[in-house]
Amino acid sequence: MPSSAAVTVGSVAIGGGAPVSIQSMLTRPLDDTDAALEQTEALRTAGCEIVRVALPGHSVLPALKAYLAEAVLPVVADIHFDGRLAVRAIEAGCHKIRINPANLQNPGTLTDIVAAAKANSIPIRVGLNSGSVAPRSGIRPTDDNPAALLVDAALDGVRSLEKLGFHDIVVSAKCPDVTQTIDIYRRLAATLPYPLHLGVTAAGGLRQAVIKHGLAFGVLLGEGIGDTMRVSVTGDPVEEVRAGWDILRGLGRRRRGAVMIACPTCGRTKVDLQEIAAAVESALEDLVTEIGEENWPDDIRSVAVMGCIVNGPGEAAAADIGAAFEHKNAVIFRKGDILERVPAASAVAKLVSLIEEAASGIR
Amino acid sequence: MPSSAAVTVGSVAIGGGAPVSIQSMLTRPLDDTDAALEQTEALRTAGCEIVRVALPGHSVLPALKAYLAEAVLPVVADIHFDGRLAVRAIEAGCHKIRINPANLQNPGTLTDIVAAAKANSIPIRVGLNSGSVAPRSGIRPTDDNPAALLVDAALDGVRSLEKLGFHDIVVSAKCPDVTQTIDIYRRLAATLPYPLHLGVTAAGGLRQAVIKHGLAFGVLLGEGIGDTMRVSVTGDPVEEVRAGWDILRGLGRRRRGAVMIACPTCGRTKVDLQEIAAAVESALEDLVTEIGEENWPDDIRSVAVMGCIVNGPGEAAAADIGAAFEHKNAVIFRKGDILERVPAASAVAKLVSLIEEAASGIR
Repeated sequence: MPSSAAVTVGSVAIGGGAPVSIQSMLTRPLDDTDAALEQTEALRTAGCEIVRVALPGHSVLPALKAYLAEAVLPVVADIHFDGRLAVRAIEAGCHKIRINPANLQNPGTLTDIVAAAKANSIPIRVGLNSGSVAPRSGIRPTDDNPAALLVDAALDGVRSLEKLGFHDIVVSAKCPDVTQTIDIYRRLAATLPYPLHLGVTAAGGLRQAVIKHGLAFGVLLGEGIGDTMRVSVTGDPVEEVRAGWDILRGLGRRRRGAVMIACPTCGRTKVDLQEIAAAVESALEDLVTEIGEENWPDDIRSVAVMGCIVNGPGEAAAADIGAAFEHKNAVIFRKGDILERVPAASAVAKLVSLIEEAASGIR
Repeated sequence: MPSSAAVTVGSVAIGGGAPVSIQSMLTRPLDDTDAALEQTEALRTAGCEIVRVALPGHSVLPALKAYLAEAVLPVVADIHFDGRLAVRAIEAGCHKIRINPANLQNPGTLTDIVAAAKANSIPIRVGLNSGSVAPRSGIRPTDDNPAALLVDAALDGVRSLEKLGFHDIVVSAKCPDVTQTIDIYRRLAATLPYPLHLGVTAAGGLRQAVIKHGLAFGVLLGEGIGDTMRVSVTGDPVEEVRAGWDILRGLGRRRRGAVMIACPTCGRTKVDLQEIAAAVESALEDLVTEIGEENWPDDIRSVAVMGCIVNGPGEAAAADIGAAFEHKNAVIFRKGDILERVPAASAVAKLVSLIEEAASGIR
């Protein structure tokens, strides 16, 4: 696994062996402070660990300050073009900034940004994406090797900070293409000693977006590349956070509550298993928020929902607990062994109560 | 890339360098023929190339025959336990069967199955999953090495066919765990000369399920492993097919219509981009169904939907066409160059008409 120095964003370490952290970005405008704080809380309860906010101009600085005073997560200010705005954001107390040094309208302000970041002990993410890099360099990302282009631009950005004696750096270089993303981050990991922020930009609606991130992050994290991540989804950023956890749990990299195992149903299924599975998934989300990962019972990390009683418990024998349904009844099982038969309508509540009982033994 | 012999399912080749094909499975019961045919047509229009049906017992054979007479896709009959039912399904005209030789209640029937498959020139999928393998062997998949267990069981199944002189084989070995799935298929690819059917079983609801498949298939297909695939989702199988295409397109392995590029929105966005993106995605799906992949204009393979007019066209300069939105207007662009400004409400229709015009030049 490539080594990288640890960088600290508020209370969260990135790199240096720290768990891969999950980030998201506010879609509510910062100047509606209540809405921004409410969305931040929703992101935190979904498992978000670092939140990013767009800072479109100086007029938002008072709102940023009001937001920072109450935000429940470390905050990254995302700034384009205006170096002085980046300095003001750092002074306002944000915990990291994300800039593209190459697109500062006044390149001289980079010295002031670095001085402010040093004075406030915060890191800088050199954050590029294929769209913002290309037009300015006069070369479009449809050219022969868009990955090499983006990597070169990222390395230029990093060097411009290093020249100023600044090394508290995180790097990202995002594009909408999966294979290019894999190529880009492999090159960055092979070249740079800094933590990498994984991302795919402009990935699309929920299904396509989460698939693209899964394809790219599965390969990269499997190779030990990536220290923090944002899944980009056009839609509710809470889904970005949930998808991030799906990825880390899917790869066995981090734990958070229980994962759900649900059969895909077939002509044998007699209940609306999709509805039941959604109810269980939602209940598991609520439970981990309520109980907390630190109190979650370690012997209930997977919960199965199966569409037939005959094969269900056996097929889901690897699940810690589960329910298998027929018309009006369900059997509740643990590791494939049937515990009891209950009315189908109370099966979800029974699964939840099994987790709550196990958790109460811990707390 | 590992080589594998080609197997033919109706008109679709699997392995031997054929494009990775996309399968799904009916959730409508076979004995409601109209519903089953309707679902099959919906799957075909979404891009499904092979459809599987559960065959729970002999009473469904007349329905299978009625279905086979009209089904618009090659049909795989999925049979557990009952070897004579498998023979009847082959004689009824299905294009492939999926069995687990180890769970035939009368192992002697395997000889009859093989004879019938040879006589009808159809392949057999040796299809195992961690749930159905484990209880019968007395070893549960939570044991030390579930991947090795499942691979051994799959190899046993393959050998039982080879001993009967049968080699028209596809192999799958599915479990709900991503890292085990990767391990299992790497072992199968290293050992067997037969085409592999990729899958993750009991993967859960849409978001978690498609992420699990993305994580596993991205790694495997990237290593040249996998000849056909089913994405398993608890829900509408049409989503399985769409997710399959998202995976193959995301990896640049196959083309079908256009992919959507959509920015994740931020505090700068003034429109409901999620709704717009969903409308574009749906329109693109309808269009490829209507026009056909063979008539799709090759210079429109990506369509961008961006949340601001100032940065949108530049950031999506790699997209073939796109729309960037502000309050009431949108700009339509091609490769980052602005074509025209239209009312926001007619932007989607404008994008569709650009594709239709380009396609009409082809047809």
